[in-house]
Amino acid sequence: MGRSHTDLAVIGGGQLARMMQPAAIGLGIRLHLLAEAPDVSAAQVIPDHVVGDHSSLDDLRRIAEGCAVVTFDHEHVPPEHLHTLEAEGHVPRPGPHALIYAQDKALMRSRLSELGFPVPAHRVIDGPEDLDDFADTIGGYPVVVKTTRGGYDGKGVWVVESADDAEEAFASGQPIMAEELVFFARELSAQVARRPSGAMVSYPVVESRQADGICKEVVAPAPELDAGKKVEARALARSIAEALDVTGMLAVELFEAMDGRILVNELAMRPHNTGHWTIEGAATSQFENHLRAVLDLPLGPTESRAPWSVMVNVLGGAVEDLEAQLPVVLESVPEAHVHLYGKAVKTGRKLGHVTVLGDDLARTIVRARRAAELLEKGRTPDE
Amino acid sequence: MGRSHTDLAVIGGGQLARMMQPAAIGLGIRLHLLAEAPDVSAAQVIPDHVVGDHSSLDDLRRIAEGCAVVTFDHEHVPPEHLHTLEAEGHVPRPGPHALIYAQDKALMRSRLSELGFPVPAHRVIDGPEDLDDFADTIGGYPVVVKTTRGGYDGKGVWVVESADDAEEAFASGQPIMAEELVFFARELSAQVARRPSGAMVSYPVVESRQADGICKEVVAPAPELDAGKKVEARALARSIAEALDVTGMLAVELFEAMDGRILVNELAMRPHNTGHWTIEGAATSQFENHLRAVLDLPLGPTESRAPWSVMVNVLGGAVEDLEAQLPVVLESVPEAHVHLYGKAVKTGRKLGHVTVLGDDLARTIVRARRAAELLEKGRTPDE
Repeated sequence: MGRSHTDLAVIGGGQLARMMQPAAIGLGIRLHLLAEAPDVSAAQVIPDHVVGDHSSLDDLRRIAEGCAVVTFDHEHVPPEHLHTLEAEGHVPRPGPHALIYAQDKALMRSRLSELGFPVPAHRVIDGPEDLDDFADTIGGYPVVVKTTRGGYDGKGVWVVESADDAEEAFASGQPIMAEELVFFARELSAQVARRPSGAMVSYPVVESRQADGICKEVVAPAPELDAGKKVEARALARSIAEALDVTGMLAVELFEAMDGRILVNELAMRPHNTGHWTIEGAATSQFENHLRAVLDLPLGPTESRAPWSVMVNVLGGAVEDLEAQLPVVLESVPEAHVHLYGKAVKTGRKLGHVTVLGDDLARTIVRARRAAELLEKGRTPDE
Repeated sequence: MGRSHTDLAVIGGGQLARMMQPAAIGLGIRLHLLAEAPDVSAAQVIPDHVVGDHSSLDDLRRIAEGCAVVTFDHEHVPPEHLHTLEAEGHVPRPGPHALIYAQDKALMRSRLSELGFPVPAHRVIDGPEDLDDFADTIGGYPVVVKTTRGGYDGKGVWVVESADDAEEAFASGQPIMAEELVFFARELSAQVARRPSGAMVSYPVVESRQADGICKEVVAPAPELDAGKKVEARALARSIAEALDVTGMLAVELFEAMDGRILVNELAMRPHNTGHWTIEGAATSQFENHLRAVLDLPLGPTESRAPWSVMVNVLGGAVEDLEAQLPVVLESVPEAHVHLYGKAVKTGRKLGHVTVLGDDLARTIVRARRAAELLEKGRTPDE
């Protein structure tokens, strides 16, 4: 085998795996990557990679072989493969018994309900009549309809005014779940890192701002969050991590509802877009704490390093060569922490992000948005 | 060629090249490494590497081909090769006209003297009689004797009481320089980053503490440094960078002499051990600003992120497997920023470093030393 206790297999070569590499370089951890293609985002920066398919048990075995632990860039590995790997002595973290709740939204909702956690009203739906029936129980349409598996960044989610509107959802061939449409003041995210032993650290609660179902901005900490809700949100994330026996990073995306409730929206058991600010903004980044957690190493402190950290995603648009924008961006916003993912440009695709730290919230937001906008749109000639 | 404006060649696969990679990952810069051997420190973390010899012009050409710029992990590339590369249209940064002053200590001393910068009394020495003569001009022995090229970490430096003591130096076959032995209160380091256009940023002046000629600890900023000297040291580094037309990072190692003088000891034109604290401790790390400077991108701000940053080197000793110490180190000092270089253990070799940030200097030093010691020595069974 020839691999040590610090050899870590990572399934999936997206930007999350890419951003694990700086933390791994520091700690002397060797990442072994299963990449979708030869030059995907993480394969550009991790020498030990092989190209393969995360739904192939043989490919998974090949990369897991000799690694102390297997972890993930995404939640698309079939649960049965993870159980097989576990039975064969490999160590997936998070384990399949936990990860299933990040893979299947219906299981997540029902399990969290059982455990008494606050979730929106929901039901797995058989067909149009069942949907109408569910709508009746919550006071009528609009209703949120989701595929229980495989959705992300707003894909696989619809807000419908009638069962007719849900045609696309029913046609998807996926199991469908209906949920109450929560009228929320804003979205929050609470992250924890948890070791197999159960030791945990939790990060400051942040506000995330979406556009078209995609996380666009994160402000850390969440501005003017009521002290009681801050405690509630952090405790909720800790309790869920414990109840589901998560190892590694857990992100709990929350609704702060108009009626005052804090409700669980989504779970992610890996580093998460709402935690990118921690790379510069927290004492230990989510990527380092993910590595430390899955390798069962003691966790690092999570406190903020600046009064405000603002992260803005860079989405694909008009600009073809983001790297060519660096001179303009760094001239305008020299303090911007720019992260480019090395991905091909597609409209709306997450291609990078920018983080700015500051003492003044309004100014910090303006600076971060400006840097992201210059990356997305470039500078017009007359500017 | 197929390489863009953000493809950067790096000559030499040590820890400095390794630590450029996290900054490169962020900015979307592709590093192309000329490595001494297949699994050297930086080759472990940079996919695009070839094995070759930095003294072979063909190997240098091969890695430079298609890269926008060539930069360095060390100063051992023969100057004539750099001139050839330049003549062939490649862009070494720093350029050979600047780098020569980091390669040859005699040239550096005489050039800085000419320019009026404060340096210790010095002379290139022909033989024992010349050494006695030099000693007479500075009030007698002891005298420092150095090889003008190739020395580092205390190698190639002797403090001699007589010409007889200098036998080893004369036997080295290298040109020899003699210098006054400066009685100094402490050593300081002033770093700047400079773009080809001349734009510069300068870092807070730090104190570096040596043991056996090797940098062991760095405290940022230098404690209780007189405000006037702070200004003097930063101005000195800026003026030298400008006078020598340095591009990239310049470290000016300084003596704070007992008689109040600030004298230039050594120059390094690359990221430097005395700047490792900037990875976590400054708004922009020396590695990122080196990349930004050599690629002629606008530079990042340099201010400290915490009242104190303390960096302690981890040197080779009894422990064979540093990574195996991580559980103990991170348990004892969870806030330690650990950097392991993936190098084979040799006694006294730099294998990694640890940085701790804090509000209280004494406590920060204690914590950083403790983390480094646990890595170096491990925990004894009865602890």
